[in-house]
Amino acid sequence: MKFTIEKNVILDNLNNVIKAISTKNVIPILNGIKFEMKEEGLYLTASDSELSIKSFIEKKKIKNVESLGSIIIQSKYILEIIRKMPQDIINFEVIDGLKIKIYTDNNQYNLNCFDPSDFPNIKFEEHKEPIMIKSSVLKDMINQTVFAISTQELRPILTGVNFKFSLNSIVCTATDSYRLAKKSIKTDVNLNNDLEVVIPGKSITDLEKIMGEDSDVAIHVFNNKILFVYKNIYFQSNLLSGSYPNTDNLIPTEFEYVIKTKLQDFNDAVDRAALLTQGKDKNIVKMLVNKELLTISSSSSEIGKVEETINIESNNTNAQDISFSSKYMLEALKTMKEDEILILLNSDVKPIVIKSVKDESLIQLILPIKSY
Amino acid sequence: MKFTIEKNVILDNLNNVIKAISTKNVIPILNGIKFEMKEEGLYLTASDSELSIKSFIEKKKIKNVESLGSIIIQSKYILEIIRKMPQDIINFEVIDGLKIKIYTDNNQYNLNCFDPSDFPNIKFEEHKEPIMIKSSVLKDMINQTVFAISTQELRPILTGVNFKFSLNSIVCTATDSYRLAKKSIKTDVNLNNDLEVVIPGKSITDLEKIMGEDSDVAIHVFNNKILFVYKNIYFQSNLLSGSYPNTDNLIPTEFEYVIKTKLQDFNDAVDRAALLTQGKDKNIVKMLVNKELLTISSSSSEIGKVEETINIESNNTNAQDISFSSKYMLEALKTMKEDEILILLNSDVKPIVIKSVKDESLIQLILPIKSY
Repeated sequence: MKFTIEKNVILDNLNNVIKAISTKNVIPILNGIKFEMKEEGLYLTASDSELSIKSFIEKKKIKNVESLGSIIIQSKYILEIIRKMPQDIINFEVIDGLKIKIYTDNNQYNLNCFDPSDFPNIKFEEHKEPIMIKSSVLKDMINQTVFAISTQELRPILTGVNFKFSLNSIVCTATDSYRLAKKSIKTDVNLNNDLEVVIPGKSITDLEKIMGEDSDVAIHVFNNKILFVYKNIYFQSNLLSGSYPNTDNLIPTEFEYVIKTKLQDFNDAVDRAALLTQGKDKNIVKMLVNKELLTISSSSSEIGKVEETINIESNNTNAQDISFSSKYMLEALKTMKEDEILILLNSDVKPIVIKSVKDESLIQLILPIKSY
Repeated sequence: MKFTIEKNVILDNLNNVIKAISTKNVIPILNGIKFEMKEEGLYLTASDSELSIKSFIEKKKIKNVESLGSIIIQSKYILEIIRKMPQDIINFEVIDGLKIKIYTDNNQYNLNCFDPSDFPNIKFEEHKEPIMIKSSVLKDMINQTVFAISTQELRPILTGVNFKFSLNSIVCTATDSYRLAKKSIKTDVNLNNDLEVVIPGKSITDLEKIMGEDSDVAIHVFNNKILFVYKNIYFQSNLLSGSYPNTDNLIPTEFEYVIKTKLQDFNDAVDRAALLTQGKDKNIVKMLVNKELLTISSSSSEIGKVEETINIESNNTNAQDISFSSKYMLEALKTMKEDEILILLNSDVKPIVIKSVKDESLIQLILPIKSY
């Protein structure tokens, strides 16, 4: 294998596949990136056992191809090596079968490689009629939910994001059992049966990062894996096994308190009140709703106390207080995009629901914390 | 004490004094910042036992002063609290003697405070005729030397920067005994006797950060402490005790090899060669000088090897190789400002000296590493 390529082209594609390299991986060959030059162009592939990414550079984007072939280049330092190359045109050449020479006029790296035959044979299967979605829409769905997954391995199924594909909708849910984020979009999905999968949190986060400018994404769902094809990138993740809890009945449909307020004001007030809860486990703040005023407060026996007041519109003139995790609330508010939000309450022991005033597609739910 | 002040004014001054708060400090009162409102304005003071900083806000920069007095406010969170305040005008009011209320229209913090009488009485003494220097000059002197101090407590005196004040010069030296950085400036110093002090590395680094726009700095040297007065800031540090080694005889004055090359080319070549030495202790790279070419190489049995070539002008056509720490070399090169530098060598066991072609004031010395 011998070819010449522009620095930015190889760098962009390496950046895509390197996300599949796990720092926790102990199998040496999986620390490598497969370079495979074929007639049609260069394929880069990387995989831990959970996530596999393939990035394709078509031949016309490669300056010169002198010979085909394949090799496994160690991923350690490869990005930095390419990034720091002194010229914009870089040469790659396999020498002695198991080494790669990466060079320009005045510098050269000779890197030890792995044998391509030792690399796992990863199949990126595709359906004839995949589910199609815009990458901008998919990015939003991920960003608005993935933060709510569980980080604890106690219930592994909750460490992923649940996707439900139906004939005319895609619904995305994440919960760590203390809070829940749910995003639904209406779209035509070409499906005979409903499909439900749970995608590992790390995979879906990496997918979100890889998607840059808006483009179509083809989603191919299989029994134990899912493939996303975005531009020249094939992104394939294992699925979490087990059944995702039914979360629909957790979300109240009627509320005693329907409170409208400015997103920014509420966010900043919680943020300031949260300052004194730093370093504590739950970051609890207390909220008091009283007619047209909402007060958020917190206290620390060591540091002192804080009290914030903002204006609200409410359907209920009774006073109500409720305590919650400021960290969870700030993360939920971050997903909101409009100027005004609805805070929906029933009592101090029932879930808090946050919604946009206009947009029905996004629901953020936070369980209150009892604090006496 | 009760006053109203602009957010940016109080924030800037808090940012100055907070550098004297040590995270390792175990004496509770030293985690506090002294606020002292007098007729002429507000003094903020903070201190660990080694470094004390006082920042003065003159009365005309304070919106409104309702009453004088003093209190010790805990430094934890104070910067964030002020930074996040929702309005540009902030009120401070001592309540119940040992609490401070910091508030705007819709929010208020009530913070527990310490008794001002428990705060150490720090004297910021001044000489009548201090040593004067421009802050831009002093900043350069610090930046070009302080990185070379020792981080090991084995020889405590080497963890500081040595300043020698004479009638017509200031000389700044730092060394960890493997490398040395020395900067000399010519200036009129009003002194009867030469003065030599060693300033702790942390103090001198903090001083560099505090100095923003160019202004005069007055330096007041005492037996066991040094005071820098820059604008409205009083910056006082303890001195390291003990005698600093005489480093003058370490720097060779004659060289077998006088090599001229481009700073950027040499820097980038060392930087790229250093990539494969990452994670190793010494980051050793090898340099070979041969007529008009300089080759820098390194290798890692695990990853592979790298070789870089740059053009040089040399007074000596004999080949010479020498190995050194790439980390030390890159740090030394970072202090150079001109396009071309001189690399001065004698043999593979004698010090490497790096100088600017034009500027004689700065010397960087690095000991070679024997590598067989």
